[in-house]
Amino acid sequence: MITGKNYIGNSLSGKGTITYKTYNPKSNSENETTFTEATAEEIEEAVNLASEAFKEFQTISGPKKAAFLNAIADEILALDDELVQTYMSESGLPEGRAKGERGRTIGQLRTFAALVEEGSWVEARIDPAQPNREPRPRVDVRKMLVPIGPIVVFGASNFPLAYSTAGGDTASALASGCPVIVKSHPMHAGTGELVASAIQKAAEKTDMPNGVFSNLNSSGIEVGQQLVAHPKVKGVGFTGSIRGGRALLDLAAKRPEPIPVFAEMGSINPVVFLPKSLETKAETWAKTYAGSITLGTGQFCTNPGLILGIKSEGLTSFIDTLSNEIIQIAPKCMLHPNIHAAYTNNKLQALDQNNVITVAAITETVTENYAQQAVATVDGKTFLENKTLHEEVFGPFSLVVQCENAAELEEIIANLEGQLTGTIISEENEVSSYESVVQALASRVGRIIFNGVPTGVEVVPAMLHGGPYPASTDSRFTAVGRDAIKRWVRPFSYQDWPNELLPDELKNENPLGILRLVNDQETTDKL
Amino acid sequence: MITGKNYIGNSLSGKGTITYKTYNPKSNSENETTFTEATAEEIEEAVNLASEAFKEFQTISGPKKAAFLNAIADEILALDDELVQTYMSESGLPEGRAKGERGRTIGQLRTFAALVEEGSWVEARIDPAQPNREPRPRVDVRKMLVPIGPIVVFGASNFPLAYSTAGGDTASALASGCPVIVKSHPMHAGTGELVASAIQKAAEKTDMPNGVFSNLNSSGIEVGQQLVAHPKVKGVGFTGSIRGGRALLDLAAKRPEPIPVFAEMGSINPVVFLPKSLETKAETWAKTYAGSITLGTGQFCTNPGLILGIKSEGLTSFIDTLSNEIIQIAPKCMLHPNIHAAYTNNKLQALDQNNVITVAAITETVTENYAQQAVATVDGKTFLENKTLHEEVFGPFSLVVQCENAAELEEIIANLEGQLTGTIISEENEVSSYESVVQALASRVGRIIFNGVPTGVEVVPAMLHGGPYPASTDSRFTAVGRDAIKRWVRPFSYQDWPNELLPDELKNENPLGILRLVNDQETTDKL
Repeated sequence: MITGKNYIGNSLSGKGTITYKTYNPKSNSENETTFTEATAEEIEEAVNLASEAFKEFQTISGPKKAAFLNAIADEILALDDELVQTYMSESGLPEGRAKGERGRTIGQLRTFAALVEEGSWVEARIDPAQPNREPRPRVDVRKMLVPIGPIVVFGASNFPLAYSTAGGDTASALASGCPVIVKSHPMHAGTGELVASAIQKAAEKTDMPNGVFSNLNSSGIEVGQQLVAHPKVKGVGFTGSIRGGRALLDLAAKRPEPIPVFAEMGSINPVVFLPKSLETKAETWAKTYAGSITLGTGQFCTNPGLILGIKSEGLTSFIDTLSNEIIQIAPKCMLHPNIHAAYTNNKLQALDQNNVITVAAITETVTENYAQQAVATVDGKTFLENKTLHEEVFGPFSLVVQCENAAELEEIIANLEGQLTGTIISEENEVSSYESVVQALASRVGRIIFNGVPTGVEVVPAMLHGGPYPASTDSRFTAVGRDAIKRWVRPFSYQDWPNELLPDELKNENPLGILRLVNDQETTDKL
Repeated sequence: MITGKNYIGNSLSGKGTITYKTYNPKSNSENETTFTEATAEEIEEAVNLASEAFKEFQTISGPKKAAFLNAIADEILALDDELVQTYMSESGLPEGRAKGERGRTIGQLRTFAALVEEGSWVEARIDPAQPNREPRPRVDVRKMLVPIGPIVVFGASNFPLAYSTAGGDTASALASGCPVIVKSHPMHAGTGELVASAIQKAAEKTDMPNGVFSNLNSSGIEVGQQLVAHPKVKGVGFTGSIRGGRALLDLAAKRPEPIPVFAEMGSINPVVFLPKSLETKAETWAKTYAGSITLGTGQFCTNPGLILGIKSEGLTSFIDTLSNEIIQIAPKCMLHPNIHAAYTNNKLQALDQNNVITVAAITETVTENYAQQAVATVDGKTFLENKTLHEEVFGPFSLVVQCENAAELEEIIANLEGQLTGTIISEENEVSSYESVVQALASRVGRIIFNGVPTGVEVVPAMLHGGPYPASTDSRFTAVGRDAIKRWVRPFSYQDWPNELLPDELKNENPLGILRLVNDQETTDKL
């Protein structure tokens, strides 16, 4: 049941006076529940509880954390149709997507459960003492990763499950041993509360300390700001806009004790068509890209918003087919009227720039909150000079830039802002003649794709979801995959510590049987 | 030969008008060479050269980078007595220390050479395609660590070799594939230039791109500020004061593209004496600590500046013996008149605080620039309330805090600023009765030591040199040991990339024979 209240640890609390409702963009009407924004006092309570819970939670064994994470997955599944219906009513997304995203969320939780149950992720390093070393004996030093403390997670508007309340940030932070306080996304506060209730049930069933998780409602930016500024908060995970992410980064940097902020802020995901790829396959690629641009109503951070090619018949044919294909796709609902309004404004702003030619646009009236997809084209010189054209248009829109030659193409790529992904479309052997283009693209992105589409982010250990600023605030980390846990941990060394008092991960006898670096060699052996 | 000029890649350049000399604190006189501060134009040249060099250097193989790093070590050794004499004349430190620190520097270079020659450090992860997966085929994703770009390294005043020009920051950045621009420390500009000349010779002998290394002179803060603000600089390594490190962090955070700053800013390294440890061994520990406090004239960032105990006969006896022992140690020269003046001021400020009692102090006149060591004591309540007493007094000084009881001891520890190290002195079994004291200490430090001294930082994989703010600006990284390389790299993913175009680290056939995570299993096998 959705109450509209905040979860402060295991208590429901709604002391505030600021209230709001979520919106069903498909029916174009408000949903029923009234949500109460967390007060300053409730925020304080949640953070203090998290800070207390951390004392116990940081030392809980891998298998017990795994049980907690798996229980969260079970409890989310147990929410069943209520969760799916609430998700749909708060996002306008279809049932298939709701269930798919739920599967992804469950998968992430179980992946982190398996990771911490096995235990080698702590990167244990052991350098035993050398009592006879000259001129001085060497001490015994042992190191492992430990959690940094309470983490604040900001849910994403476009992934009410997989990048929100129990999404990748929360799953990785809990797996690391950090308590989590979620700043619930106002567009899907009901979905958020349901998932929060699942996390609370799981925490109680698996005997986790109260305060290991809290879920705070917020309609504006104040709750988030207060959380990020709180001295007991030690890290921040965010998925959203550049403006939002940068504001949090700046706030965290100004604290007396600065804390790490990992914000994934999206990008325009350039796709580079090498000339030969369009000689014979322009139409096939155009059809594929019409699908990728409109997938999920274009509301993916990996949406291909920028297509780069060198002027040619092939490119013209690609543009023609893409234009024809994309307007045949039925317009779809966006997440929220505000997102729809922003899409329309940003799209019109892009189309309105000098030398930008609209090549495809749905002009007939569509249902309220449904997005009219569009494709435009512009010359390379204009794109280089006009930074407005580099900005993300969140929704089903893409800009095709027609470069004069390979040199201009490379210059454009080298001058791009940081991106989550870059894609090269090439005939098999063609790419080897464009080494510097590929290198330029690689230097601007977190993930490079060959002959595919950027939409679709596999949850596998090899995935990097992030990238150079402003795709993320710190290119050294990922938001997806097992390495996402590294954002919330710090290495910690023990020197000459008694074996029986060391954590199991570092004991001589290696009771957990984990892989460790001992004397600079990877081994599961005991000492 | 020391010219006083800047190394802009392989060219010596001295276009500026701001000049300065280094100082011999032992003879209390200026050294001969006149150094010319780098101009804005020279800084621009060095950064542009580094940015160009990065294009090639980032793809250079592990064995070639290893040859470069080993050649640097060889060239530093070839500088022989000129380096040792220059080091001594610019630091006042003795020959044994010069040679010891040179050995540490060489060791670090060779350690990183071995790391990148072997190659597994890139954390290769491979998740092969699953073309038959339902409902959608899975793409092939492969990930490895790649360098982030030109790094600016600020040398430390107290380690002219091991934490300066070719110190741990430079060695780890070059090993990762990042070009380095050193902002030379003005106190040992001659030592810095000699080491820079060794790096240049090594770069030429091993065919590295010009600009892979530059060394810029500076007498004030402007050169460093300009470097950190430069858009082509992608990371910063710093060792020094909290004020200096924080200023660089703030500057980097304000850039249009924020960049990571790893600053190791020192600390007061609390040492906690549990009661029983002082019942029989007070005198032994006091002698050990008299040595640790005065080691290197107290000029180590791991110097034990804070000693915590519970009021007892044992603690009184410890204080008495420490006082007697420390004044018998001959005063030693500090690094520079400015450092000596700061030590004297900070020490007097600490001794001047309410309720602080000086228990040992050398009062007779000593040689110019020699430090008069001192020990003081204060009650726990005063220490808790007076944050001035929490500040580092860089030099041979320590404050013994006498707590009323274990609760006050724990409260003090829990309220300490972040520290590089924390030490527990205990009878073997005693420590298990102080679990919450140990946990409180662990939460505030990067490295915890049992029955030892914090001075002495072993260069081993298990070492963590860093810690919660303000010991460092980011507790998730280390400045010492092989993991220091992680500060300068980002994960990068390839999706469906043709095998023959992948870097060797990620090719099916695993030509480098490195350890990789394939399908979530660590293996050196080919696919």
